[in-house]
Amino acid sequence: MKKFEEKTVKSEKIFSGKIIDLQVDEVTLPNGKTSNRELIKHPGAVAVIPITKDNKILFVEQYRKPLEKSLIEIPAGKLDENENPIAAAVRELEEETGYTTKGLSFVTSFYTSPGFADELIHIYITDQLVKMENPPEGDDDEFVELHELTLDEAKQYVLDERIHDAKTNYAILYLHALGRM
Amino acid sequence: MKKFEEKTVKSEKIFSGKIIDLQVDEVTLPNGKTSNRELIKHPGAVAVIPITKDNKILFVEQYRKPLEKSLIEIPAGKLDENENPIAAAVRELEEETGYTTKGLSFVTSFYTSPGFADELIHIYITDQLVKMENPPEGDDDEFVELHELTLDEAKQYVLDERIHDAKTNYAILYLHALGRM
Repeated sequence: MKKFEEKTVKSEKIFSGKIIDLQVDEVTLPNGKTSNRELIKHPGAVAVIPITKDNKILFVEQYRKPLEKSLIEIPAGKLDENENPIAAAVRELEEETGYTTKGLSFVTSFYTSPGFADELIHIYITDQLVKMENPPEGDDDEFVELHELTLDEAKQYVLDERIHDAKTNYAILYLHALGRM
Repeated sequence: MKKFEEKTVKSEKIFSGKIIDLQVDEVTLPNGKTSNRELIKHPGAVAVIPITKDNKILFVEQYRKPLEKSLIEIPAGKLDENENPIAAAVRELEEETGYTTKGLSFVTSFYTSPGFADELIHIYITDQLVKMENPPEGDDDEFVELHELTLDEAKQYVLDERIHDAKTNYAILYLHALGRM
């Protein structure tokens, strides 16, 4: 859909980083006037809702520098270049939790913040976890702690704002709606 | 919570825009090594789930330059400086839909993309809409079209990816879980 399309007049690359790029586009609006759009380019991300045999959910706690605090989130990470989302989801699950999975089901995907960023996140669920003997190591600048929580415990963490991000809040609401836990 | 805290060694401001700022922080990791973090600063945002007397949901369609396509979303917008989130939610509802409300209930709030951005979005719901005779005008670079959809229609739009963003997918799942429509 291209309703109210904004045509690019000029595009200026401001920054190219290891995670995100920033560009500012000058655009023609539907009324013929011009405006600027600040755009973050992101490779996209994946997340997994991992359910254990005991009907608990695996979460990872990690420090989030933009917020200057740690959050408890479902395992997630960004896509490597040209990486298949399901492969990325398995990789992030293994690196962050030490579990692999025999099968992943797709839940949904959504843009996290379409006003300024193109990040699209794909969410999967699995209840077919297998503990790994030698899990792969993650990025050398990532430090995570594993939490196993019941759905009720996770809901309490939402109220306490220790769980406080789009993909994880969505995941908990999804499990609640599913009525399976 | 400060688990695995990353202390800032140096912070470099790269860009200061009308919506977002970008800075790169050099940080000390828990293992004593250093790394860089690319951080987007955002003023925060609000969104409203507006339910009509006929039990339909109001959505707005708008062009999202980062995606180069239009999406159908619940009414939303960023916070003005020092603006109260409830006041911002009413303002965005009025500007984007032409309806005001007698009362808003808080649903949840979450960080949209805590890996690289500090944007926090607050979501409200109302079924007390009142059509305005002279609704305020929105930003002069915003063009939106109103849609009234049943919950079933909205779910179909999720499948078609015309609805495809965190706050709106969350809203639809929330209404589904509530079982009220």
